[in-house]
Amino acid sequence: MAVSWEESVTASINTIYLLFSAYLVFVMQIGFAMLCAGSVRAKNAMNIMLTNVVDAVAGSISFYLFGFAFAYGDTNPFIGTDFFALFAIPNGTYDYGFFLFQWAFAIAVAGITSGSIAERTQFSAYLVFSFFIGGFVYPVVVHWVWSSSGWLSPSSSDLLLGSGAIDFAGSGVVHLVGAIAGFWGSLIEGPRVGRFDAFGKPVPLRGHNATLVVLGTFLLWFGWFGFNPGSFDKILVAYPSTTHQGNWTSVGRTAVTTTLAGSTAAIITLFGRRLLVGHWDALDACNGLLGGFVAITSGCAVVEPWAAIVCGFVSAFVLIGLNILALKLHYDDPLEAAQLHGGCGTWGLIFTGLFAKEEFVVQAYDSGVKGVTRPYGLLLGGGWGLLGAQVIEILVIVVWVSVTMGPLFYGLHKLDMLRISTNEEVAGLDISSHGGYAYAPQDDDYPRSYGDFMRLRIDQA
Amino acid sequence: MAVSWEESVTASINTIYLLFSAYLVFVMQIGFAMLCAGSVRAKNAMNIMLTNVVDAVAGSISFYLFGFAFAYGDTNPFIGTDFFALFAIPNGTYDYGFFLFQWAFAIAVAGITSGSIAERTQFSAYLVFSFFIGGFVYPVVVHWVWSSSGWLSPSSSDLLLGSGAIDFAGSGVVHLVGAIAGFWGSLIEGPRVGRFDAFGKPVPLRGHNATLVVLGTFLLWFGWFGFNPGSFDKILVAYPSTTHQGNWTSVGRTAVTTTLAGSTAAIITLFGRRLLVGHWDALDACNGLLGGFVAITSGCAVVEPWAAIVCGFVSAFVLIGLNILALKLHYDDPLEAAQLHGGCGTWGLIFTGLFAKEEFVVQAYDSGVKGVTRPYGLLLGGGWGLLGAQVIEILVIVVWVSVTMGPLFYGLHKLDMLRISTNEEVAGLDISSHGGYAYAPQDDDYPRSYGDFMRLRIDQA
Amino acid sequence: MAVSWEESVTASINTIYLLFSAYLVFVMQIGFAMLCAGSVRAKNAMNIMLTNVVDAVAGSISFYLFGFAFAYGDTNPFIGTDFFALFAIPNGTYDYGFFLFQWAFAIAVAGITSGSIAERTQFSAYLVFSFFIGGFVYPVVVHWVWSSSGWLSPSSSDLLLGSGAIDFAGSGVVHLVGAIAGFWGSLIEGPRVGRFDAFGKPVPLRGHNATLVVLGTFLLWFGWFGFNPGSFDKILVAYPSTTHQGNWTSVGRTAVTTTLAGSTAAIITLFGRRLLVGHWDALDACNGLLGGFVAITSGCAVVEPWAAIVCGFVSAFVLIGLNILALKLHYDDPLEAAQLHGGCGTWGLIFTGLFAKEEFVVQAYDSGVKGVTRPYGLLLGGGWGLLGAQVIEILVIVVWVSVTMGPLFYGLHKLDMLRISTNEEVAGLDISSHGGYAYAPQDDDYPRSYGDFMRLRIDQA
Repeated sequence: MAVSWEESVTASINTIYLLFSAYLVFVMQIGFAMLCAGSVRAKNAMNIMLTNVVDAVAGSISFYLFGFAFAYGDTNPFIGTDFFALFAIPNGTYDYGFFLFQWAFAIAVAGITSGSIAERTQFSAYLVFSFFIGGFVYPVVVHWVWSSSGWLSPSSSDLLLGSGAIDFAGSGVVHLVGAIAGFWGSLIEGPRVGRFDAFGKPVPLRGHNATLVVLGTFLLWFGWFGFNPGSFDKILVAYPSTTHQGNWTSVGRTAVTTTLAGSTAAIITLFGRRLLVGHWDALDACNGLLGGFVAITSGCAVVEPWAAIVCGFVSAFVLIGLNILALKLHYDDPLEAAQLHGGCGTWGLIFTGLFAKEEFVVQAYDSGVKGVTRPYGLLLGGGWGLLGAQVIEILVIVVWVSVTMGPLFYGLHKLDMLRISTNEEVAGLDISSHGGYAYAPQDDDYPRSYGDFMRLRIDQA
Repeated sequence: MAVSWEESVTASINTIYLLFSAYLVFVMQIGFAMLCAGSVRAKNAMNIMLTNVVDAVAGSISFYLFGFAFAYGDTNPFIGTDFFALFAIPNGTYDYGFFLFQWAFAIAVAGITSGSIAERTQFSAYLVFSFFIGGFVYPVVVHWVWSSSGWLSPSSSDLLLGSGAIDFAGSGVVHLVGAIAGFWGSLIEGPRVGRFDAFGKPVPLRGHNATLVVLGTFLLWFGWFGFNPGSFDKILVAYPSTTHQGNWTSVGRTAVTTTLAGSTAAIITLFGRRLLVGHWDALDACNGLLGGFVAITSGCAVVEPWAAIVCGFVSAFVLIGLNILALKLHYDDPLEAAQLHGGCGTWGLIFTGLFAKEEFVVQAYDSGVKGVTRPYGLLLGGGWGLLGAQVIEILVIVVWVSVTMGPLFYGLHKLDMLRISTNEEVAGLDISSHGGYAYAPQDDDYPRSYGDFMRLRIDQA
Repeated sequence: MAVSWEESVTASINTIYLLFSAYLVFVMQIGFAMLCAGSVRAKNAMNIMLTNVVDAVAGSISFYLFGFAFAYGDTNPFIGTDFFALFAIPNGTYDYGFFLFQWAFAIAVAGITSGSIAERTQFSAYLVFSFFIGGFVYPVVVHWVWSSSGWLSPSSSDLLLGSGAIDFAGSGVVHLVGAIAGFWGSLIEGPRVGRFDAFGKPVPLRGHNATLVVLGTFLLWFGWFGFNPGSFDKILVAYPSTTHQGNWTSVGRTAVTTTLAGSTAAIITLFGRRLLVGHWDALDACNGLLGGFVAITSGCAVVEPWAAIVCGFVSAFVLIGLNILALKLHYDDPLEAAQLHGGCGTWGLIFTGLFAKEEFVVQAYDSGVKGVTRPYGLLLGGGWGLLGAQVIEILVIVVWVSVTMGPLFYGLHKLDMLRISTNEEVAGLDISSHGGYAYAPQDDDYPRSYGDFMRLRIDQA
């Protein structure tokens, strides 16, 4: 019973598509590392880059051992229990390429959270929370929404509200999960030393390197071309009721909607903040861009390009508004991660409930089979079923992550294992925990003309 | 009338090839941002990175709304008028993947120009010119050369001089267009403050970070693998008169010619400049490399690998020569963009007219159909038709971009909207327009040993 | 005799897979450049980046002219003599895509060596050795192991020990070759000035920028997804004795084993060094990661994921141990390149001899044809044949590289052409050989508050 020519061609094409998409999603880890490094002060750069490396390497092991099993094991609607340590993989349903694609998603989640708690968290606390969220909290949500046996899944045999939640590439599953975790962590830790002065006025603690922020943002954009268009998993799927369309059409359209949503959000944020603060800020454009991407991630595959522009337009205001609110409430999130991934992620899920197009929903979730009817965007006449499921997804994610990660952070806090001491914070994590600064721009045999400055520098080295 | 198996396989394969090529072309935007940032002084890094972000995000919207329509709408030989806002896309000819690939090209053009006018241009002027060149000037040239209805196209039904111009991936359409615009902008603005001393002697204004320059150059190389080999649009096209060749062969050969031309130019520039200035300069090698890439971009698909080496060899001297000339004429282009993209782009178009191989021309433009005859490289015996069309392309691009962008820059100049004030230029664009410097390597709670220097630094923050 | 539909589809799919893998391998050059730049002192950053650029561009020319011919020409088991300057390419066996993939490997080798001899080598010596190793020493080893006519090849008609050596993506062919060359270079040059004090105690000479090190490491990871999974060359190969598996399965599994080995090694190195030195060092995690990748590179295609974890686990200790030994022996390798690529590369070859799985070996080297029997991992019951061949590969690489590169470095040393003078070394290579520093963060019109420091800086510019 050998493999047929058609099967071989199909498997090869879909594997190339999925693996190279996975590699692009992996680039987001590089993007995160650079974005985070540039956004913190120089004295904490080494620390936050190490957290990014640890997310990737510890996530590899935990996702291999049990994360993938919790997510895609097929036993019940709440948590999977097959495929621990890739047992029984490959099989007719899952091949290694699918595992790698999901792995690249899994290692991204903790990175979002690490932004919220940056510059003041003990590294050992980071190891604990990263392992817990990546290995358990996140995979369970994946199972609910993306596994075909999940209770929220839009492709299960028993659709919630007749619809299931459409979170195509994870505005909720990935971004909201990471953001809620970060929100609790940051709230429990409190603001960084010096972030608000004696009168409660915010003091800007600028990141040390805007070039790294721009590099990281662009790399995230590049990676998002794997994240969103890649989430079809297969590209060789023809739509029976069309003359020349298939997943290849939708994959391309998903890249376009992603691009348009992010671009619109970036422009609106740039101009909006120009009106608010009086100058053109590249970092605002970067954060706006990312907010647009986060928002479109849920609906990218099921909306028209024009709707993606609406999505990005609104997410700019969500981001600007939440940032103002955060300052008012003295909430300090060094990367704006909770606002960006949480706020825009939430908006993205609602947006999908409003603007999902019937034709695209049928194509994405029923391979375009003619005659299938299912709820779609409320504003396009698709009824309340989809929007209802989206709201349920938002609520259960907020609750689930809060009841799991909240106590974890609180427990660490009570045990004095969460936040570093004020002295260490002032000195910086790099020198207190990581053996030295990220930068050593001068050294003892540097040209003489640096003079006095150099002597001071040498004392310190 | 469903989609057949053969159609599905073909569409899937070609879409993977085209989309992933588009993603690589997008990487050139990252490369440009890093190259530009590293090549300017630290005080202007934020500004030039923002222009790169704006090129991408504003270009997304304008290319979606009308740029693509001007370029590929099919109504007449001079400007397209279909497909505004992706109306009637996808259709049998164009799918979303093609739009995305073209979008990635469109956002690159303004980036070239921004190099020429760096470190002294008002950001609002940048917004105006970027929108105008990306949304109108560039798409019109695309229509002429790359749309099958364009009057210069090598695949139209009525070939200019029986040949049409061969500008496979855009030495002229992309690089020369950006360079001519930059030339006028830079000429009208004049040199940066301090670039030439009281006696007219040039003063080097070194970029602040060579690491970024090298990073950017390498990323551009990576992206060029999408730019040139990707420009076949389809990979699954067999050549009927061969036993095992098709576009897959040509795509690979295009990657090879690109690599060889850039490499040769880099080596020759490195050694040539070593003879001229007495040291081995990494930045010369980088610029030489890019010059070689720009030159081969026109003919990459239709020349033999050995010819690519000739192409790169000559482009090194074009670049070195034009840089010497620019200094003599007191022309100040911070990125050498006009010399590099303009000079080497022009040489590339001529090179194609001299070295294009008959077999490859027929394969690239007539899918290798036996018996087709058409002009090819003059030096290979292909007559004057192709070279004539190449020269015409050069001339019309120079004229078209000059009559559109020249008046625009001149008008902005007359309205005092083009160049920043001398005070702002001395202080730097970042602090005067963008709210702060790109770098904040120290801050108030940095280790004490920085001493006096730190106090000065804090005052300024 | 046109190309059939099946042939066209097969060629297109395999070309996409191979070319995009080649592009990823090229990214390793960017990764190397950033890793090296960040790991040296600021005064030598320009120099080491130029060596990376030169590896790529000079390697393009030499590999095109004769390197590829030495490696894949098919005349005898010791050195190839066909295909100089791509003569007779493409043919039924090799297309341009294969050349490009091999080119990307070739330019990586000299980069490994350049790490060992960093910060003290004359640039002209670099040019000589880079040309010699990339154009001759490395291609010959490729021919032995990877060309089907090579005497060590696992797919030749006359298998050494009935097995041939399995070095799938080059733990030995690439990494060990580069490392042995670097070892001799570094040994002959001796330690950098100031690396060991008057009492022989090592003095840390920290790299100037950890952000670049992390960026480079992550880019290398990204590139390794091309290096290892890409080394199948073809993805559309069905395994006749399975129901749904083919090279597509193995390609995915190879990406997984690569990821797991690197990740395990990174974690173990991070914790191991934490115990040894008392802090969490991001750079240790990075080097551990790379060590794991180097080790798995030999067996990535023929071992189970669980075995990859064993591979990574051991390689962490190999790396830590060899670094301790190097310090004891006063061996100074600025990038730890000989320890990392040599030590972990050697371990990787042995690991494959111990853990290669019969089924995977048959699939990778006999396209999964049923009934083929051949030696496999000793610990899995596959006998001594494979392990013997692996040990022979190690020995012949050590000997071959030593007898070629050793005398070359020694000759350059005797002619006073290898090491720069102590004065130049103290001043830094950038100012002495490359016309200036990589960084110029301040300049004459920078804000006044820099005060005295600025004046000093200006004098020097």
